Amino acid sequence: MTFELDKKNILGKTDKSQKGEIDEDVLELVELINSKEEYYTTSSCSGRIVVIEMPESGRKDETKWLLVKHRPVSLQEIKDSIKSEEDVWLKQEGMILHVCCKSIEAAEKLVNLAKNSGFKRTGMVSVNKRYVVEVVSTENISTILSKKGKILADDEYLSELFSECNKKLKQNKKKISQFTCNFS
Amino acid sequence: MTFELDKKNILGKTDKSQKGEIDEDVLELVELINSKEEYYTTSSCSGRIVVIEMPESGRKDETKWLLVKHRPVSLQEIKDSIKSEEDVWLKQEGMILHVCCKSIEAAEKLVNLAKNSGFKRTGMVSVNKRYVVEVVSTENISTILSKKGKILADDEYLSELFSECNKKLKQNKKKISQFTCNFS
Repeated sequence: MTFELDKKNILGKTDKSQKGEIDEDVLELVELINSKEEYYTTSSCSGRIVVIEMPESGRKDETKWLLVKHRPVSLQEIKDSIKSEEDVWLKQEGMILHVCCKSIEAAEKLVNLAKNSGFKRTGMVSVNKRYVVEVVSTENISTILSKKGKILADDEYLSELFSECNKKLKQNKKKISQFTCNFS
Repeated sequence: MTFELDKKNILGKTDKSQKGEIDEDVLELVELINSKEEYYTTSSCSGRIVVIEMPESGRKDETKWLLVKHRPVSLQEIKDSIKSEEDVWLKQEGMILHVCCKSIEAAEKLVNLAKNSGFKRTGMVSVNKRYVVEVVSTENISTILSKKGKILADDEYLSELFSECNKKLKQNKKKISQFTCNFS
């Protein structure tokens, strides 16, 4: 199948993500990428704050999402979400994009653009049948909140944590704007 | 310059890292990779626990390393290291490797091997003059410890945190063994 046909098929499909639509903060960038002849996106997340239940096994398919927000959160929202007998973790993650590229040169160009916009961990994750670039940043927050139902961090610590999460989410938004600007 | 000559030059150079030598836990894997005709490593870290001072600017070149250990740490070691008027963060990072590959096929093979060994964020970071693969994992810990000289987390929280860091460091070691095994 040609790249053009693949692009048409993928972009024409129903959004299979949990949310069912592209995050608002990344919509302009996604549309810009898809407007270029040599690229199309296959998945996107604008960046988020999540609270997850981690099973003892550590298996990703057994984790349970207690809170997922693509916007700043309040301390109360985080506290309300920690209801589990398993280990509960807080994570703040930056934007992540997967982009199919028509040629290896187009992929290389995208990798450099993303890196120069602050997404330092960007790389080509597949070059076999398709050239797929994963755009991702090195900055994140990831820490434990509760163990066997007992909240480990006190209010003061939780308060600093959620304020750092919100700060990083804002910095991430700036990087998205920078990337959008560099890509235009 | 040919790949073979580059490889000879790079591997013959003095180790310019802070430590000045390859981490013990990753030595077998690094030597195995370098024994193959189509690969050579340009940098490696076996995984580590670090305490860093983050300047207000957030600039990486202004951060200061207060503790860097490639082995499990004690609670006291972490506490002793938090001496700063700036924000102090704790990070646990898994193995990171940069590998030059002779061809795009060799690079693709390495990306797949690393992913199947648990290093899910592996990708090709350069395909321009050289094919460079960055082997890296998604799992980490990253959280704030103190702000303007005031420790935010109490002893109980710090104790859980350092135990989680040590646990992840052990899991990371298992993944290195798995990768070494898959690569052989």
